[in-house]
Amino acid sequence: MKVLIVYAHPTPSSLNGTLKDHALKILKEEGHELQVSDLYLMKWKAVVDAEDFPSHSDSSPLNVVFASGEAYTTGTQAKDVAVEQEKLLWADAIVFQFPLWWYGVPAILKGWIERVYAYRFAYGYKDGTNAYRFGEGILSGKRAFVSVTTGGSEADYGPRGINGPLDQLLFPLTHGALFYPGMEVLPIFAVHAAMFLDEAGLCAAKSALGERLKRLFIEEPTRFRRQNGGDYPDRHTLADHIAPEISGLPAHVA
Amino acid sequence: MKVLIVYAHPTPSSLNGTLKDHALKILKEEGHELQVSDLYLMKWKAVVDAEDFPSHSDSSPLNVVFASGEAYTTGTQAKDVAVEQEKLLWADAIVFQFPLWWYGVPAILKGWIERVYAYRFAYGYKDGTNAYRFGEGILSGKRAFVSVTTGGSEADYGPRGINGPLDQLLFPLTHGALFYPGMEVLPIFAVHAAMFLDEAGLCAAKSALGERLKRLFIEEPTRFRRQNGGDYPDRHTLADHIAPEISGLPAHVA
Repeated sequence: MKVLIVYAHPTPSSLNGTLKDHALKILKEEGHELQVSDLYLMKWKAVVDAEDFPSHSDSSPLNVVFASGEAYTTGTQAKDVAVEQEKLLWADAIVFQFPLWWYGVPAILKGWIERVYAYRFAYGYKDGTNAYRFGEGILSGKRAFVSVTTGGSEADYGPRGINGPLDQLLFPLTHGALFYPGMEVLPIFAVHAAMFLDEAGLCAAKSALGERLKRLFIEEPTRFRRQNGGDYPDRHTLADHIAPEISGLPAHVA
Repeated sequence: MKVLIVYAHPTPSSLNGTLKDHALKILKEEGHELQVSDLYLMKWKAVVDAEDFPSHSDSSPLNVVFASGEAYTTGTQAKDVAVEQEKLLWADAIVFQFPLWWYGVPAILKGWIERVYAYRFAYGYKDGTNAYRFGEGILSGKRAFVSVTTGGSEADYGPRGINGPLDQLLFPLTHGALFYPGMEVLPIFAVHAAMFLDEAGLCAAKSALGERLKRLFIEEPTRFRRQNGGDYPDRHTLADHIAPEISGLPAHVA
């Protein structure tokens, strides 16, 4: 199969760099074809702005939605954006490796999403509306694997840990950015207390990551509810009879 | 009082630009002193990397935590970072105005947090540990006001709306980045379905924002639980007797 690794850390010898290298090794041993988007090495442009749309007229105010949709449909996108979209279309699975910074993805990865996810590509699929999203879209059926390191202890990210649960903090990524255009999102892989990891801890982390990656194409994905699967009759709100006792982010997992 | 507006949108005539201008007008009429960090206009560098730490030796691997802490404590930070820290220390309240992009803050604003929030400044306060955070820190007592626009309808962000509740999607910002170093965070102000706002809707939005800003220094903040207030006896996990029936993000609001 074909696997794209999207990696966001400035330091090759960091824990994140080590885990990325280990993922590459394991995935290669498994016989997969590989591409890597090393965002720091690529000096990825993190900020979406008018420079992304050279064909956009300076005389009209920039609307990122329409400008990105026009650039996408007319083949006038920034080259780096088009290349990343091609990698996404090529891949059967995408592995994300990054540190949790201020309880979310690093800015360089957030900016990768913002620029690569053009209108009519990742949203407004097919008809420009929200008709196809959350379980259907351009990346339908591809698998997404999120591997993250944290500074805090595992307890801090527990169900009642002070930071909040990791899967809820990363819901904007897993549900909002990966499931949205159709990806099947596997449970998050996390290495906690990264600064305090000793040699044995690093070995255990690499081993655990390797085991997860060997099951990349067979593991059961998180059961996010599909917009058009019947649970949201009006495409906006969960039907009253679906998990009636739950509200908030957990209500969107079956 | 002194108010800093941190604004992140590329288009001055956008809804976000209009709301930012309106906020400036109202706050000025209220007699406050004002500063604005217009991140796009400033061409804010969004990505934290080795260039931020000119005194960091190229021969040792970059560790952002230690490099930022050393630069902060030795006065060798990047100039733009030091200027933003000064603005934060100057302000009695900080107003954030931005569009919700992929269910979070724009990359340029995420990068503002990552670069301005140096170690020993925004975290590792006083002693380098986590002893003082979530309700105590360098920005203790200052007020934070988050004003956000969304593409989706209000229903999509309702308690059982398909996107998830806005206050939970933005918990990494409000709790994780603003309450963390001590700010008192006011309830989020949101304008939904931004693309479909007509003239009457814009008037209503400006009026509602103005009313909220007139109460900037008297409104009741969100009651996030303080790390050292007694609810987290070990500084990691909520005590069993605190809201025993709740887990996840809502458990951290009293």
